[in-house]
Amino acid sequence: MSEITITRARVIDLRFPTSRESIGSDAVNKDPDYSAAYCILETDSGVEGHGLTFTLGRGTDLVASALEYLTSFVVGRTLSGITDDFVAFNRTLTDESQFRWLGPEKGVIHLATGALINAIWDLYARVEGKPLWKLLAELPTEKILSAIDFRYIDDALTPDEARAILDASREGYAERLALLEQEGYPAYTTSAGWFGYSEDKIRRLCREGLAEGWTHFKLKVGGDPAEDLRRGHIVREEIGWTNKIMVDANQKWGVLEAIEKTRNLKELDPWWMEEPTNPDDILGHARIRRESGVRIATGEHCHNRVMFKQLLQAGSIDVCQIDSCRVAGVNENLAIILMAAKFGVPVCPHAGGVGLCEYVQHLSAWDFLRVSTTLTDRVIEYVDHLHEHFLTPVRIRRGRYLLPGTPGYSIEIFPASRERYAFPHGTYWKNEHPA
Amino acid sequence: MSEITITRARVIDLRFPTSRESIGSDAVNKDPDYSAAYCILETDSGVEGHGLTFTLGRGTDLVASALEYLTSFVVGRTLSGITDDFVAFNRTLTDESQFRWLGPEKGVIHLATGALINAIWDLYARVEGKPLWKLLAELPTEKILSAIDFRYIDDALTPDEARAILDASREGYAERLALLEQEGYPAYTTSAGWFGYSEDKIRRLCREGLAEGWTHFKLKVGGDPAEDLRRGHIVREEIGWTNKIMVDANQKWGVLEAIEKTRNLKELDPWWMEEPTNPDDILGHARIRRESGVRIATGEHCHNRVMFKQLLQAGSIDVCQIDSCRVAGVNENLAIILMAAKFGVPVCPHAGGVGLCEYVQHLSAWDFLRVSTTLTDRVIEYVDHLHEHFLTPVRIRRGRYLLPGTPGYSIEIFPASRERYAFPHGTYWKNEHPA
Repeated sequence: MSEITITRARVIDLRFPTSRESIGSDAVNKDPDYSAAYCILETDSGVEGHGLTFTLGRGTDLVASALEYLTSFVVGRTLSGITDDFVAFNRTLTDESQFRWLGPEKGVIHLATGALINAIWDLYARVEGKPLWKLLAELPTEKILSAIDFRYIDDALTPDEARAILDASREGYAERLALLEQEGYPAYTTSAGWFGYSEDKIRRLCREGLAEGWTHFKLKVGGDPAEDLRRGHIVREEIGWTNKIMVDANQKWGVLEAIEKTRNLKELDPWWMEEPTNPDDILGHARIRRESGVRIATGEHCHNRVMFKQLLQAGSIDVCQIDSCRVAGVNENLAIILMAAKFGVPVCPHAGGVGLCEYVQHLSAWDFLRVSTTLTDRVIEYVDHLHEHFLTPVRIRRGRYLLPGTPGYSIEIFPASRERYAFPHGTYWKNEHPA
Repeated sequence: MSEITITRARVIDLRFPTSRESIGSDAVNKDPDYSAAYCILETDSGVEGHGLTFTLGRGTDLVASALEYLTSFVVGRTLSGITDDFVAFNRTLTDESQFRWLGPEKGVIHLATGALINAIWDLYARVEGKPLWKLLAELPTEKILSAIDFRYIDDALTPDEARAILDASREGYAERLALLEQEGYPAYTTSAGWFGYSEDKIRRLCREGLAEGWTHFKLKVGGDPAEDLRRGHIVREEIGWTNKIMVDANQKWGVLEAIEKTRNLKELDPWWMEEPTNPDDILGHARIRRESGVRIATGEHCHNRVMFKQLLQAGSIDVCQIDSCRVAGVNENLAIILMAAKFGVPVCPHAGGVGLCEYVQHLSAWDFLRVSTTLTDRVIEYVDHLHEHFLTPVRIRRGRYLLPGTPGYSIEIFPASRERYAFPHGTYWKNEHPA
């Protein structure tokens, strides 16, 4: 690619007032205002890179401040100077000698790192004129390997093992690509089962979901056990017992309680139990899995590849739920997807929020094309909120994500939305709903 | 206690320019400017509570901003309203429904939580007219138990198990207190072995340390293996083979490399190997411990009680290095100290930085008086920097911390120091060394 220099970075604190409609409500997150720390990388070529990290409202300013600082490491640099030695670049962010104490590689600073690295990939893909999944899928094996930081994970996945996985995916590539182009990637819907929804609303949304072709439905649990079961049976009455229900407790329980509560929910025949306990509890998840006999899913709060490595090593999970933003963007997710493949665990990404669906469809397409080579037991989460703010929103057909065709990482938000929902000075927050 | 209301909170971003002297340099942290997000709780009684969380310079503003927000949960509240149901109060901070997404219970927001909760304990102890260790040691068992959040740890330590440990400590309490009052709590020095120090400086500092009565010396490693050994043998030449050396790699290595490097360092007869790999790697530490045969220590970057729980459950550590600030202050450390006791692992706190020595001496005294009941294999870290900024700095005699006698948590910094080193508007940063 021609020499392109990043000349300026802009950071925006964006907040959407979703808490007013109980959108996104669950056992732990009662009133989220879906938000994002958003950055735009301007270049001397005119092409921009956009990236964001998803947050829930208050505290987005902290991530935006961290992101503002981290952008100082890209302004003035060439794109190829970054992408030619991506690991070295990423370490300038994650090993920043004073900032690092605030993590390392977790929380506010890592969320900010994710936004910046994703913005660079968006720029990279636009410059190459390809949607991100295509850029990734067509990268030579050695280029992919050079973008992955094996530090702290090489006891679980060596570069040679990763190379073997990537090389083996050459076989059948064209057929898989044709399949994705025709049918898209399987998905599930979380839109019907939010915590704050009434029985009527759940029934209506289940029926609409079935009519639209959905076969996998997620239900938020973690409230009163009888009430959880009651809501679960409402969903079962609507969708029957052939379609799949996944239950999600959003970290509500301790380990012992999670075992009991998960067993209680077995009568719903859940396809997986998601986030039964604290997201840091690797050994706890392994024990819940062993003692409940229900498939266990987690990952949306798993803060880096070292934690995912251990979830896999300890046999904690049946389903690996990557998140596009919580870890340090595309590169760290490539590592996690490859580790999951090595351990034979399907990746079913976390999505929803703001832009997570737009992002993660690219990673799943790459997973299918270059890593797992199968769609068995794989579904991407889908939530039908806030897509109207994106220039190239996801396209869903019959419960599947259709392959994105526009160059980039699909994450650009319309300027009008950015101006309206910028916090606290956007027109929505300043004029329409002042504090 | 009489009704005291918190009327106002002030937050300060404090930065000391330690990087100019290679103070605190190690294999990973090259140029720390020891810093703190500092808060002062003002009350209608005139008594203040002071608390801080230790940081390394850049990014302290993020923690200060988070702390500023969290103080909104204490202003207007009574002290007893907080301390009578401390768990409920702590959860208003850690479960804040939008902020929580940025953790949970890790990174910037958890560091800020630590500063605030520590400030409350400082206030509590001042109001009671006792140094914190004495307040804690004299609290009834049930009061201690009510201050501990057992959520997410009750699979490892139940309230009944904690109660049994605390009740058993009644026996011999007076003798242990007399011992602490006469001799103090054993310590080790890190001041001689920083990464950036020359051979001459190491030799001189070792000799001075011996003359002062030190018997345990920490050496930073993680550089070139031959150089690590050379520096280690310099220390051994100075202190002999009866005194103890602890080596500290500050997370430099991957798991496999750590096993090899730790084995190589065995010729120094290290008493422990500290932070051989990534701090999140519970299973990795367990493997390094098994395969190197060297005692393993970690904890200063361990971000909450769920992670400490697993380090103990997995058999990852021989030495539990609590930190006063990284977890959510006193309460979470009480839980960790009790878990360590249950698993039979000695607590040897991390200290140094700004105020960590001042803080943690209180927790160790409580550990001895009410939990472990022994000093065997227990030492508190000591680093001889920045104590001059504290109203009641630690007092060291013959390699031991002397019991603090002043009411509170010993963390108040002189107003003149706060004004000089406030960032970026303090006189040091604004006038003496402008950016």
